[in-house]
Amino acid sequence: MTDHPRITVLPGDGIGPEVTEAAVEVLSAVGTFDFDERPIGACAVSETGAPLPEATLNSCLEADATLLGAVGTGVPPADPHAPRPEQAVLELRTSLSLYANLRPVRTFPALHSTSPLRPERIEGTDLTVVRELTGGLYFGQRERTSQQAFDTCVYTRQEIERISRVAFELASGKGSRARVTSVDKANVLDTSRLWREVVQDIADREYPEVELEHLLVDTAAMRLVTDPRQFDIVLTENMFGDILSDETAVIAGSLGSLPSASLPAPPNPLVGVRGGLFEPVHGSAPDISGTGSASPIGSILSAALMLRHGLGLSTVANVVEIAVRDVLDKGFRTPDLGGTTTTKEFTRALLSEL
Amino acid sequence: MTDHPRITVLPGDGIGPEVTEAAVEVLSAVGTFDFDERPIGACAVSETGAPLPEATLNSCLEADATLLGAVGTGVPPADPHAPRPEQAVLELRTSLSLYANLRPVRTFPALHSTSPLRPERIEGTDLTVVRELTGGLYFGQRERTSQQAFDTCVYTRQEIERISRVAFELASGKGSRARVTSVDKANVLDTSRLWREVVQDIADREYPEVELEHLLVDTAAMRLVTDPRQFDIVLTENMFGDILSDETAVIAGSLGSLPSASLPAPPNPLVGVRGGLFEPVHGSAPDISGTGSASPIGSILSAALMLRHGLGLSTVANVVEIAVRDVLDKGFRTPDLGGTTTTKEFTRALLSEL
Ligand SMILES: CC(C)[C@H](C(=O)O)[C@@H](O)C(=O)O
Ligand SMILES: CC(C)[C@H](C(=O)O)[C@@H](O)C(=O)O
Repeated sequence: MTDHPRITVLPGDGIGPEVTEAAVEVLSAVGTFDFDERPIGACAVSETGAPLPEATLNSCLEADATLLGAVGTGVPPADPHAPRPEQAVLELRTSLSLYANLRPVRTFPALHSTSPLRPERIEGTDLTVVRELTGGLYFGQRERTSQQAFDTCVYTRQEIERISRVAFELASGKGSRARVTSVDKANVLDTSRLWREVVQDIADREYPEVELEHLLVDTAAMRLVTDPRQFDIVLTENMFGDILSDETAVIAGSLGSLPSASLPAPPNPLVGVRGGLFEPVHGSAPDISGTGSASPIGSILSAALMLRHGLGLSTVANVVEIAVRDVLDKGFRTPDLGGTTTTKEFTRALLSEL
Repeated sequence: MTDHPRITVLPGDGIGPEVTEAAVEVLSAVGTFDFDERPIGACAVSETGAPLPEATLNSCLEADATLLGAVGTGVPPADPHAPRPEQAVLELRTSLSLYANLRPVRTFPALHSTSPLRPERIEGTDLTVVRELTGGLYFGQRERTSQQAFDTCVYTRQEIERISRVAFELASGKGSRARVTSVDKANVLDTSRLWREVVQDIADREYPEVELEHLLVDTAAMRLVTDPRQFDIVLTENMFGDILSDETAVIAGSLGSLPSASLPAPPNPLVGVRGGLFEPVHGSAPDISGTGSASPIGSILSAALMLRHGLGLSTVANVVEIAVRDVLDKGFRTPDLGGTTTTKEFTRALLSEL
């Protein structure tokens, strides 16, 4: 028996193991943790027949936090009825009640030149997408025949209330420029009309100090490209969040550099949230897997989010984030950022900053 | 009785009337048409109580083509139960069976500097988004109480087949670089799995010469920003199309310059498609309405699409499109493009090119 936080580590597929190893090294350098490594995804399917083996899920359920690499092989399984690796991700979300997906998008000054946007359009972007992760079209009733198919998007008041609180808590924590932009399609969808009403309600009753704006999803998709700096906290439902958060990730020019947190409760800066999942935004990138050239930044910054939101160790999280910035400022760049630094070289440079 | 094509003109709200007037002048300069002007949207609500009066709909049903300005006032109605102007747009789509929405996105060399993207990323972009417009989440069963709401996304094989044919016809018409990118979320949604299967089927059976690629909607949202030039024809369902086409519109840096066509049948280059609706991509822009400064380009290029896809007059359509390019090359710019040219000045310059 120890007092050290227990972290389940799920390296997964493709570049997952390479980047996760880097993040574990960084965590080990800034604290003492009990790591429990488990299989997930395509590699778990070949080992055990299931993308999310029971032992893996149990480890996550008992852990203080889980660090995930990436899942999937990029090629559809030969047998169309074989379990899909992505299924593991969806199962984890429901089993761990990870209803709040946080994706902070911050541009490092050193990386402005990698954005597809003109530098003056992105300079200073600092926003967080808060995506509802266990409801909507992803988990509603569905059916499919050869002639017809349907999916159902369902939201309850309670589901919208709890994800709204996550967004408003984050905004409150940011101080005076606190602003939440809630994104929906209230001119067409009934779920969006309920969404807008409930978000406004929570704002009025519980967070009158936070500025709230409602935006249609098509307008949001435009404004994120034309002026990402106008956003602070972007709150949205599951399907819209999937699309907008990936759009936002590339706008910052650093898909490989972005972290995410999936939480089962509103973030608590003092003690953290037990049972969260932390993973880079990028996927398993089978094309560069095994070359040792993947950027470990997304995974390392996910470890920082774990320290902050999962373990209540904000100061340590800040140290890691500053070290990443410093290593970039020194010119280290993996190939995705136009350089030739390897995963291990980047990690070594970062460890020497800590 | 005449042999001239009958065009219903729906100026609508905000800048709608100003830009539509410009497009009608251009049409009158290149041909002889019978115009029938009718109210729609907020202005129709105040005149008749309905956003889409019966007489307006009947005129559209009898016309060879309809030219629409814009609908909506940008402010929610004081009475939440009042008819919404957007409702007119949705009713028109179903009543006229406008299942195929085409949005060509082409960058004018003169406008590269207005894109939020680095010029080298967009130069030469020439793609068309083909959006299914009468199915999916927009028209499925829905319900809402104060505690819960749902929307249903439904697609039938036949609906997917007919929109696929529109995309493949357009690709075929483009010649050897014909490529269709079909966008779905087949790793999660049953409607998307059916979508992917049916699109692939139509490709294999009817258009073996066209290259087909399937992309997940989140990946598409990224690639449209990082490399819009890789796309040719982007085929997608209603909700995804709403988001991606607006994203694409701003990427080109010219929201006010983009046209759209909504058709009830696959485009037929020789005779046109009877009963189509043509409108600029931009909205009613209440903030600049009445200032005489709106760009008429979106509406004028929509008239060109009407000539090409609605009336089988491709050569005349080309003339109009080239004239727009020439006027831009001469330096005329409305305020949205950073200039001081008025709507009327731009239109006059264009008429003198014809
Ligand atoms: C793998 C897939 C099911 C998943 C999603 O759509 O949520 C992914 O795209 C993501 O955003 O985490
Ligand atoms: C007005 C609205 C209902 C409409 C839509 O969502 O289809 C608009 O955004 C569009 O894209 O034409």
